[in-house]
Amino acid sequence: MTHLTIALDMMGGDNGPPVTIEAAVLAVKEYSHLHLILCGDSDIIRHGLESYSDLPEKRLEILHTEQKVEMDERPSSALRNKQDSSMRRVLELVEQGRADACVSAGNTGALLTMAYYVLKTLPGIDRPALISSLPTSGRQKVYLLDLGANVNCDSEILFQYAVMGSVMAEEVEGISKPRVGLLNVGEEQIKGNDQVKHTAQILSSVPGINYIGYVEGNDIFTGKADVVVTDGFVGNIALKACEGLGKLILNEVKRVSGKNLLTRMMARLALPILRKIYARVNPDQYNGASLIGLRGIVVKSHGNASSEALLYAIKEAMHEVDRQVPTKIKHKIETLLMERP
Amino acid sequence: MTHLTIALDMMGGDNGPPVTIEAAVLAVKEYSHLHLILCGDSDIIRHGLESYSDLPEKRLEILHTEQKVEMDERPSSALRNKQDSSMRRVLELVEQGRADACVSAGNTGALLTMAYYVLKTLPGIDRPALISSLPTSGRQKVYLLDLGANVNCDSEILFQYAVMGSVMAEEVEGISKPRVGLLNVGEEQIKGNDQVKHTAQILSSVPGINYIGYVEGNDIFTGKADVVVTDGFVGNIALKACEGLGKLILNEVKRVSGKNLLTRMMARLALPILRKIYARVNPDQYNGASLIGLRGIVVKSHGNASSEALLYAIKEAMHEVDRQVPTKIKHKIETLLMERP
Repeated sequence: MTHLTIALDMMGGDNGPPVTIEAAVLAVKEYSHLHLILCGDSDIIRHGLESYSDLPEKRLEILHTEQKVEMDERPSSALRNKQDSSMRRVLELVEQGRADACVSAGNTGALLTMAYYVLKTLPGIDRPALISSLPTSGRQKVYLLDLGANVNCDSEILFQYAVMGSVMAEEVEGISKPRVGLLNVGEEQIKGNDQVKHTAQILSSVPGINYIGYVEGNDIFTGKADVVVTDGFVGNIALKACEGLGKLILNEVKRVSGKNLLTRMMARLALPILRKIYARVNPDQYNGASLIGLRGIVVKSHGNASSEALLYAIKEAMHEVDRQVPTKIKHKIETLLMERP
Repeated sequence: MTHLTIALDMMGGDNGPPVTIEAAVLAVKEYSHLHLILCGDSDIIRHGLESYSDLPEKRLEILHTEQKVEMDERPSSALRNKQDSSMRRVLELVEQGRADACVSAGNTGALLTMAYYVLKTLPGIDRPALISSLPTSGRQKVYLLDLGANVNCDSEILFQYAVMGSVMAEEVEGISKPRVGLLNVGEEQIKGNDQVKHTAQILSSVPGINYIGYVEGNDIFTGKADVVVTDGFVGNIALKACEGLGKLILNEVKRVSGKNLLTRMMARLALPILRKIYARVNPDQYNGASLIGLRGIVVKSHGNASSEALLYAIKEAMHEVDRQVPTKIKHKIETLLMERP
């Protein structure tokens, strides 16, 4: 297998280096062709690595940076003032071609802003999108985008999102002719706001996209579509509302467990199953969201992620490198722009 | 207690008269001061009532209508062509002051369109909203609006929604100075689209609203706010996404129950609890959503509702009559419009 290089933001995330270091070690031990560039405070990283034995040191390159982007820092301030940060460095390594992809568990807003500035968007793409896969009751996952990269999207941007989501589903998930749905308040043609109606017109006119029409909020989880497209405002709120509901259900089960012996027993038995299901339906916890539409691969792991979750994000990045997602998006959008009437 | 009259759309809902008749009977038996006007096909209603004994017939008035609005009928067609429908009649009874409120489990879009046409909005209110209460992990419920009455809302309309939600929380739920949050993709001032930012400015300038700032999707269920305001596009999608997730979790538990003896046992024990919780977090199933901002009280029960759920919607309507919700909204908006700079 050919060599593959990923730049890892070691300072990002709520839990910082202890978690990022463990994830890095797990990753290089699992994949012998993986080379990691660990960006961050070199003393901390070196010290952290000392507690592991049998490390393939040649595949764990450390790149020192003086700064780190704080989790609550304003994106504009991070962009201006954190030019020697671990987050900035991993993006620059991708831009310079020294890394095939980068992964960060840091501040999402700062990562979005910096990635857009450092990597720029692909030709034909106006704005990057944050995309993640979610479970469905069907056999396959569904890709939902945008999860919050852009809160003001016109129909042209939504069209580009449909193209990008389609490429992700086809290349990463291996779905042939992925069914693309547009998130709306009803399935009828007359429903929705102007932005959605206009996007539907564009998508219907392009044979290269398998557009299946409007889908409703509940359809996200039914497997009706392989890709669900919406703007970052709606996508972010829908995803977070689901996260909130998941937590509420867990809390409710805990609450009833105090009531009487029977419910207590039942709830205690139910909790492990529920936690497992919650982890599966809460992509933030187990998965990385990808920032797509850029001239490089950027995977965002949840700030509160464990080393296993961060490892998952590294695997996601490796998979996108393998499938050459940015190149595929570039080709697809070029082809479709020629198809459009 | 004073006499209270509610007009009930007997033909609405997926299950039709058998369910609406049972709900009507349950309601008049539970509340001796309740008078119901049953609108619909008088033969069917009379025949349906025959299977019940000891009915307070004087409090069950039947009003014959020739037509019914179909569940999949286009709202514009229902408005034009169904002037002698049970749905239209219940709204007219409210408009004429013959009923204090009306309840329908029929086609939501048609009900919205007809109610807006027949009842008109209150002075100071441009558009009605669909509102419902949801459970939280806190002690109190949260009111979420708009759930889909208007997909294009400017900041003026969102301000009016904040006022209406505040009145509902105060009058119906009994919360003093309800905390009003504006749904957004982040809590920071700089987040969000222009519409949300402008609404935040308006809400911050009005002392009569206890505006607590932006809340995120997951905050809907945490009890952080008593009222969460958003436009009908976002509210509808967020609510339905939660409904979809709830169903997915139920299905997942059923699925794992086939795996081995232990998970099967655990899942079977967990299912009843989960179903109960799902019913609690799925407002469509147990509750009525109210159409507010009109010169009259309109409660919408879920189309697939059972007689118990429809009874719940009737109680909700009775409660809103008791608290004089439309009058309170009218006074509140008048006061606040004077407060505004």
